[in-house]
Amino acid sequence: MSITTFNHLVELLVRRGQRRRLAVVNGIDDHTQRAVEMALDEGIVNIIFVGGKKIISRNQAMAHYHSHIEYVPADNPDDAARRAVALCREGKADMLMKGRINTDNLLRAVLNKETGMLPKGNVLTQITMTEVPGFDRLLIFTDSAVIPFPTQEQRVAQVRYVVNAWHFMGVEEPRIALIHCSEKVDERHFPYTAGYKDIIAMAQRGEFGKCIVDGPLDIGTAVSPQALATKGLSSPLEGRADGLILPNIEVGNVLHKTLSTFIHARMASVLQGAMTPVVLPSRGDSAESKFLSIALAAL
Amino acid sequence: MSITTFNHLVELLVRRGQRRRLAVVNGIDDHTQRAVEMALDEGIVNIIFVGGKKIISRNQAMAHYHSHIEYVPADNPDDAARRAVALCREGKADMLMKGRINTDNLLRAVLNKETGMLPKGNVLTQITMTEVPGFDRLLIFTDSAVIPFPTQEQRVAQVRYVVNAWHFMGVEEPRIALIHCSEKVDERHFPYTAGYKDIIAMAQRGEFGKCIVDGPLDIGTAVSPQALATKGLSSPLEGRADGLILPNIEVGNVLHKTLSTFIHARMASVLQGAMTPVVLPSRGDSAESKFLSIALAAL
Repeated sequence: MSITTFNHLVELLVRRGQRRRLAVVNGIDDHTQRAVEMALDEGIVNIIFVGGKKIISRNQAMAHYHSHIEYVPADNPDDAARRAVALCREGKADMLMKGRINTDNLLRAVLNKETGMLPKGNVLTQITMTEVPGFDRLLIFTDSAVIPFPTQEQRVAQVRYVVNAWHFMGVEEPRIALIHCSEKVDERHFPYTAGYKDIIAMAQRGEFGKCIVDGPLDIGTAVSPQALATKGLSSPLEGRADGLILPNIEVGNVLHKTLSTFIHARMASVLQGAMTPVVLPSRGDSAESKFLSIALAAL
Repeated sequence: MSITTFNHLVELLVRRGQRRRLAVVNGIDDHTQRAVEMALDEGIVNIIFVGGKKIISRNQAMAHYHSHIEYVPADNPDDAARRAVALCREGKADMLMKGRINTDNLLRAVLNKETGMLPKGNVLTQITMTEVPGFDRLLIFTDSAVIPFPTQEQRVAQVRYVVNAWHFMGVEEPRIALIHCSEKVDERHFPYTAGYKDIIAMAQRGEFGKCIVDGPLDIGTAVSPQALATKGLSSPLEGRADGLILPNIEVGNVLHKTLSTFIHARMASVLQGAMTPVVLPSRGDSAESKFLSIALAAL
């Protein structure tokens, strides 16, 4: 079965029948609890609540799933972050999720050189999967949260993460577009576009596994065969990109917010590169979006 | 009547009953001719075709409007650009439109220091108006075509053009959002966000006429009261921005292409700052989009 909707993704996880262990940092807010409950309903996770006392006893739905829930006490949100990160580092949890804690504080625990969970040399960056109403498949695009302006090395890591995510979902040869505001390399104004050639060459040498990479392309010529034809261009992606590697965090943010604000597209975001996936929703995310992010992380 | 759709905008022009004189540079392509025909159908323009021999005689619809069409011969597209720009400079045309000619070549004619049409010190930049299905009003956003990274001075000019466009359309106190990927000034990674404070102060001093300016805001908190509330933020715009001043051309392009590719939003784009508005469609634009751009320029 090819995975073209979030429902397919959840079905895949249900069919696989493995419960991932999700460590939730101070999961006291409603959206986090509702998202966790949805993941428990689907039977795709076991939960370790770290900090946030008495979550289970106060929440009827949680009480129902008590055999799939553990509780680890913590003194405060920062302590909860340290303890949850330790669980991930020690292999006792398979993924980490932010509840009510400042993003910077959680990231500090993740990035701590001694007690954190980012292997040296790894690139921590965000991927977002989106299901756009009226569009025929899921798309994955890069970082609207962590890296302001990716270096070439970070961009290479982003390509790797996106290709890997598609491989996990059974897409044999994902199509990856390196995005820019035009189809021309512009070394003067946009130096990073010069690096696109090297990434394409790496892909052709097989360094990312089976995939097709092309760029620069804009969002239109990346995902629309018609836009490509209208511009009289050709691309090995044929206007059918599965993955969009975005220039920087501002482009990521505007894509993310435009899809969510104007089209109410379903979205899931996960940080890649740490010892386990990290679900780091933003305050604006719905409970459903947080649940979908858990599903993406559980992949 | 408040103008919340492109149809309202066209009605406004029809009611005003003034025909703007549109100089079309080498308008031999189908989309340009179809767009011109739509503008003639509405009775909002007179046309001066500059270059592109025998357009009228070959096109039945055009023949019908012969009393509203002039023809100025030219040796080639570049010559047509020079002649059309001269008409604008001499007050014989009210707006300029690109037909089949390379964008750079047309801009060269516009920008020529002696024979061009950009007054010294003026900022040439693009505004785009969009009608997003399901959204309750039109939005105007800045440059996805001309200025890669606006300076503070250029950004101030962009605010002025956007405010003016709304005033022309009868919006007394337009709300203008200065866009960034977050609501925090970040002088280190995004130096331009530090300049937002000064633009807000200028607006408060009345330097743009009546308007409300706020930022940094992201696309969500700019146009969605709900997104603003969910983030627990307050803004004098109250999540009801009419204008979006975008950080740079890449953000502009991704917004433009996301709205057109995924939502099929109606779009109109015009260059501001020259002696007359310049309609500079991109190859991918539909005939309808080119017509709407003529309407926006005719405002």
